[in-house]
Amino acid sequence: MPLSANNPDRTSWLHVSKNSDFPIQNIPFGVFLTRDDIITIGTRIGDTAIDLGALHQLGYFDGIPLTDDIFLQDTLNDFIADGRKTWRLVRNRIAEIFDAENDNLKNNKQHKEIVLFRLDEIEMQLPVQIGDYTDFYSSIEHATNVGTMFRDPDNALLPNWLHIPVGYHGRSSSIIPSGIPIHRPQGQTLPNGASEPVFGPSRLVDFELEMAFITTDANDLGEPIPIEEAEEYIFGLVVFNDWSARDIQKWEYVPLGPFLAKNFASSISPWIVTLDALEPYRVDGPKPIKPQLDYLKYKGKKSFDINLEVAIQPKGAKETVVSKSNFKHMYWNMAQQLTHHTVNGCPINSGDMMGSGTISGPTPDSYGSMLELTWRGEKPIKMKDGSERKFINDHDTVIMRGYCEKDGTRIGFGEVSTKLLPIYTKK
Amino acid sequence: MPLSANNPDRTSWLHVSKNSDFPIQNIPFGVFLTRDDIITIGTRIGDTAIDLGALHQLGYFDGIPLTDDIFLQDTLNDFIADGRKTWRLVRNRIAEIFDAENDNLKNNKQHKEIVLFRLDEIEMQLPVQIGDYTDFYSSIEHATNVGTMFRDPDNALLPNWLHIPVGYHGRSSSIIPSGIPIHRPQGQTLPNGASEPVFGPSRLVDFELEMAFITTDANDLGEPIPIEEAEEYIFGLVVFNDWSARDIQKWEYVPLGPFLAKNFASSISPWIVTLDALEPYRVDGPKPIKPQLDYLKYKGKKSFDINLEVAIQPKGAKETVVSKSNFKHMYWNMAQQLTHHTVNGCPINSGDMMGSGTISGPTPDSYGSMLELTWRGEKPIKMKDGSERKFINDHDTVIMRGYCEKDGTRIGFGEVSTKLLPIYTKK
Repeated sequence: MPLSANNPDRTSWLHVSKNSDFPIQNIPFGVFLTRDDIITIGTRIGDTAIDLGALHQLGYFDGIPLTDDIFLQDTLNDFIADGRKTWRLVRNRIAEIFDAENDNLKNNKQHKEIVLFRLDEIEMQLPVQIGDYTDFYSSIEHATNVGTMFRDPDNALLPNWLHIPVGYHGRSSSIIPSGIPIHRPQGQTLPNGASEPVFGPSRLVDFELEMAFITTDANDLGEPIPIEEAEEYIFGLVVFNDWSARDIQKWEYVPLGPFLAKNFASSISPWIVTLDALEPYRVDGPKPIKPQLDYLKYKGKKSFDINLEVAIQPKGAKETVVSKSNFKHMYWNMAQQLTHHTVNGCPINSGDMMGSGTISGPTPDSYGSMLELTWRGEKPIKMKDGSERKFINDHDTVIMRGYCEKDGTRIGFGEVSTKLLPIYTKK
Repeated sequence: MPLSANNPDRTSWLHVSKNSDFPIQNIPFGVFLTRDDIITIGTRIGDTAIDLGALHQLGYFDGIPLTDDIFLQDTLNDFIADGRKTWRLVRNRIAEIFDAENDNLKNNKQHKEIVLFRLDEIEMQLPVQIGDYTDFYSSIEHATNVGTMFRDPDNALLPNWLHIPVGYHGRSSSIIPSGIPIHRPQGQTLPNGASEPVFGPSRLVDFELEMAFITTDANDLGEPIPIEEAEEYIFGLVVFNDWSARDIQKWEYVPLGPFLAKNFASSISPWIVTLDALEPYRVDGPKPIKPQLDYLKYKGKKSFDINLEVAIQPKGAKETVVSKSNFKHMYWNMAQQLTHHTVNGCPINSGDMMGSGTISGPTPDSYGSMLELTWRGEKPIKMKDGSERKFINDHDTVIMRGYCEKDGTRIGFGEVSTKLLPIYTKK
């Protein structure tokens, strides 16, 4: 099926400012609460949110096989489960409806009043009910940095790292959309030099700059997904902040991996940008340093050139960009991750989410966590307001952004912005 | 609220054989497919399954605040979300309806035809949609055995183990009810002495004998649950086989924990036995070897005396019991696990599942995995059919059972039985 929605020459009758992440070539999917307190599935062009449930009821999707209530839902899970063919039909149709050449909706004031919303009239929700969330560890720079700091600089990568897209299971219940504040977690830590742990607020709260992809139903229990098919089951991507408490992590993580150090909160950008919209931004991935087993060998361009940045905004101050990285640096790509995840027959469902792992680039200003940027706090970062950060302070807001740009077309993710509040106190 | 359903003197007008796990004092909850291809929520007395959806429609729950469709669902999640007061009202009412002294339903042939099923007329389903699944590692004997085999006999327990109920996130999508066969997983392993991994079928497929508890909605993001309140959020328990592939696990698990070695399948017994039904079987837990931090200190009896056994049934042969253990051996109890899980504000929802970790007792015949029972395969176990087992063979069925017994009343879980098929081949 042609991806006509990607046509770079198309413009929309909706206003799109020059540096918008959301031109008519994007057409992401999300879920929002409208001014009428109704939750609906929608898309966005420029700074206009579009109610797909209303568009569907008004007949704009006629001819596409969709159930009546497919967009009148709290989550995108059912729509995603409809599969890639349906996503493409819908995305192409949306592009047609909002094409500058198409007067149909443009000239229907009554319909526009029902369908279109200003961003300040809506509240973005979590776009999917995440059944299972897996986090990978696929940046060689990040794995090397962490191995250097915590284990042995001469053997920073563990022996399995170049063979396995290492991953682990995370907690779905604490994944939140951009805009929801979180509390500094409390937990057990082992102070330096102490033999017994203490309980209290984490003192080393950190972000992790990641991308995450959302899947559709892929396989039955027992059935592996070959790598050539893996991308068929990827609906789209979000920018992902995998909040981490480094001191809790250090004490708890052996031998079964991070737990409370991660599951207090993980934030995602609310608009899922489809893999289809990202097609023009495919690039070659890094060359394997060691041969990879056959099931992980792939053909073609499976990496994506997505510019990423992280900013910290102290309370009442301007933000400071602390990292600029790119998704293309990942050593293991999404197709390899999904294939590896199912090689033992593990079932993947609509609405599952898989994080990339922290995306660190090759230079120190492209590292994806404060742990690496400040090298365990040894090199604090100056903020524009004159303060310094080793890790994240109470009342700081961490903002991550991502976008692709090529031949004058920019496809972006908007942002994931999360404020860290002090420890929770009973109301 | 009194737990009148636990009255040990009550008998039922339904037949209950002498050693049944399901006397009228049990009243577990499950989900089944009926002979009419309808999925409903039910309970079980003796060998009779009871359709709670039909009972409710017929007015037998009048006076209890329940929505009309609360039992006409694919999962128990909404019923569990109604909270402990409602569970108790329903369980007490069921005890009354089936009390030998109550002729109401007993004498209504038409109602009985709608409500009652023989076990061979139904097919048990997964009882809950498991949002998040966490597995703990709370048996000191198991952790010591594994530490002795894989690390250092003199320092078998890692430094955090006596302070933290160590846990990690697992995969919900591969949790299946008893009766569903699974395939031997394939994956990467590092052969002894090799420097590069190979791909192929796991050669060390193992069971792990566990119990798991199912929770109700407990807290908001950020809010810890104090240990005195933790048990209020536990609906009930199942017997749990946490299938493991030891060779995959050994190669993949550093530094982020087990992943594909576990997520190919995990099986549970289909009837959730309520924590209320287990009240009479509370016992003291083990004395802490080291002082525990305040948030983990508890009062009263938080351990449960549940007899457990594991049997292996080779194809076409009789089963051989290979382990007898008890849930009371766990060093960390469920209240401590749930409290620890939320101390950082991680939200717990209705239908979440938390596994105990492998339950190994103090004697070699009470270990909860083949890894320990055969000590890495060094001491194979004789089967009744003359064959030997180091780990699990293709076409073996692994059966786990659990029950409590005291003062002539036995409350049991039935069984979780899972057959291991050879590796998956495309149909």
